[in-house]
Amino acid sequence: MKIRGIPYRTIWLNEDGWRVNVIDQTKLPHEFSTITLSSDHDVAHAIRTMIVRGAPLIGAAAAFGICLAMREDATNSSLVTTCKLLSRTRPTAVNLHRTLNDMKTALMNVSERERVATAYTLANDICLTDIKTNQAIGEHGFEVLRKLYTNKPPDTPLNILTHCNAGWLATVDWGTATAPMYSAHNAGLPIHVWVDETRPRNQGSALTAFELAQHGVPHTVIVDNAGGHLMQNGEIDLCLVGTDRTTASGDVANKIGTYLKALAAKDNNIPFYVALPSSTIDWSITDDINEIPIEERSKEEVMYVSGRDEEGRLAKIQVTPDGSNTANYAFDVTPARLITGLITERGMTEPSAEGLATLFPEHVTQDHRTI
Amino acid sequence: MKIRGIPYRTIWLNEDGWRVNVIDQTKLPHEFSTITLSSDHDVAHAIRTMIVRGAPLIGAAAAFGICLAMREDATNSSLVTTCKLLSRTRPTAVNLHRTLNDMKTALMNVSERERVATAYTLANDICLTDIKTNQAIGEHGFEVLRKLYTNKPPDTPLNILTHCNAGWLATVDWGTATAPMYSAHNAGLPIHVWVDETRPRNQGSALTAFELAQHGVPHTVIVDNAGGHLMQNGEIDLCLVGTDRTTASGDVANKIGTYLKALAAKDNNIPFYVALPSSTIDWSITDDINEIPIEERSKEEVMYVSGRDEEGRLAKIQVTPDGSNTANYAFDVTPARLITGLITERGMTEPSAEGLATLFPEHVTQDHRTI
Repeated sequence: MKIRGIPYRTIWLNEDGWRVNVIDQTKLPHEFSTITLSSDHDVAHAIRTMIVRGAPLIGAAAAFGICLAMREDATNSSLVTTCKLLSRTRPTAVNLHRTLNDMKTALMNVSERERVATAYTLANDICLTDIKTNQAIGEHGFEVLRKLYTNKPPDTPLNILTHCNAGWLATVDWGTATAPMYSAHNAGLPIHVWVDETRPRNQGSALTAFELAQHGVPHTVIVDNAGGHLMQNGEIDLCLVGTDRTTASGDVANKIGTYLKALAAKDNNIPFYVALPSSTIDWSITDDINEIPIEERSKEEVMYVSGRDEEGRLAKIQVTPDGSNTANYAFDVTPARLITGLITERGMTEPSAEGLATLFPEHVTQDHRTI
Repeated sequence: MKIRGIPYRTIWLNEDGWRVNVIDQTKLPHEFSTITLSSDHDVAHAIRTMIVRGAPLIGAAAAFGICLAMREDATNSSLVTTCKLLSRTRPTAVNLHRTLNDMKTALMNVSERERVATAYTLANDICLTDIKTNQAIGEHGFEVLRKLYTNKPPDTPLNILTHCNAGWLATVDWGTATAPMYSAHNAGLPIHVWVDETRPRNQGSALTAFELAQHGVPHTVIVDNAGGHLMQNGEIDLCLVGTDRTTASGDVANKIGTYLKALAAKDNNIPFYVALPSSTIDWSITDDINEIPIEERSKEEVMYVSGRDEEGRLAKIQVTPDGSNTANYAFDVTPARLITGLITERGMTEPSAEGLATLFPEHVTQDHRTI
């Protein structure tokens, strides 16, 4: 997508053909700068400090981390060491570990001489697959938006509420929940996006608002408290969010607060869609939403807010009183009953075991087919 | 309630017997300081800049503003001028205008010589009535908490979620939603309060957390997104909030985001209570929640967050990107169907025209009785 009118991806090969450039997302939305990574240690640092974040982008970055390590030393022991290093950066990111394992297996099967070239080919493939998947989600989602738009009075945009950043900054390009929005916007369908701030890390105001603004998509930032009121007053035509993990039954674990918006959508008969690459589906969880583990993150994210101070510098301020305890749950689970549809790279389906099994028959065991 | 172990009210007569002291709430929770007001202009400034805020406290402050004006000049024209001045500070605060009108009418009926003494008597009465009302809400609410506590396993506190600041800092003392919490805590019933941060103005983390911490009530600050997840996981036994305006049918307009918590409470079979002095009931609105006007406040409240910077100074930082639009709705309406009970100074009732009419028969016209 575009930044200052120039098409960007979140990760790309440097002009020298071997180093890797990324956008420093810790400084967004107030400063736009890129960083060049020269080693697997640079990549590990970028993931750990959230210079790059978002499951698909982390996977792509880790793949390039292996490329950089192989360039220095293509031995088996180097491969094992770099995979361990990169794996430790975000212990709970399922996607990261799958990418590392896939790369390791593939590279072990080729000679040391071929490993650098093979690694770059694989890393490039991972990026292209991510883009292709998101574009497909974008096309299927665009159909959903197009249909809803036909119900709108003339000259009024389709109003979409989104939560957190399931945007192109979390992927290599296009994003998941944002892909249908960019597809619609690029095709001239008038949309307006209500962007939830998404405390505590403010990924909505810091990242989603930034990327929509840079690409020219009309949007308005609201606090996380506001969505219910807007839905009660007819200001929202649909909700469209991403997901960190989707169960085989269609329940969705996404950024904390998603469940509250889904409840409000249900209460006001507003469709609630979740956009997802099938890689986020956890086929092992079928029955109970309590099976999904919810990460508890640092209390500091609740205690402090980051932004730009009056002198234009990036700053962090404390908002809670000294001596008050805080708690910080990162995700909540939106039960399938509150979701209108899951938009995947293979099309849209109802959020149910049957719906998902129809789109992805290869993942369904005999046991699950009988559900 | 207590601050650093010392009992305080939010407004009190200075030792000199005529000036008025208030807590500077713009500096909370990071700095505790009091300000002495010497004139009606001082009071107007304090209300306008939110040094004092909260409908009951604003009413009390305005009453003392008239006292200070009468002390300088007790003529009719002075009385009219000061009422105009104070009235303009917060044009939408119904309570403020009622207090000013009541004071004006009462003072017009006494001679100029008696006006200073009468004004101080009336202002003092307004404060005492507010405290008495909140204490009564506290007692009735305590009964609700006591009953719910009997269902808890031994040695576990009663977990209450609250939104915004319906605390003693918004009143003269005790608060409305907090009155039952202080009553319970003072009586030795173990409670723990989940405090919603309450963006955009952060009255939860800045004020409610501060006053609970100072009074020694166990509590945890959470972002506004977290309450639904906590309810899904059995971490909340009841919700208890205040209200800015209550319709005669029991619908409640309260701080933006209240509706989302009420939906989650309903979805998880958790009781949702609203504490209110009957002065917040708008007997003219009976049918449609859309009759309640929702104030749109400055976009800057969404764009900026206030807190304490790394050098310990109060600071304001920008969180939204340059060029992103923001919107700031101050309140939302929670329909009566989502509310378990209204806790008033006359007792608890179901949120309905019938329930309110039983408690407050003097407000019900023949027309409304037939509903």
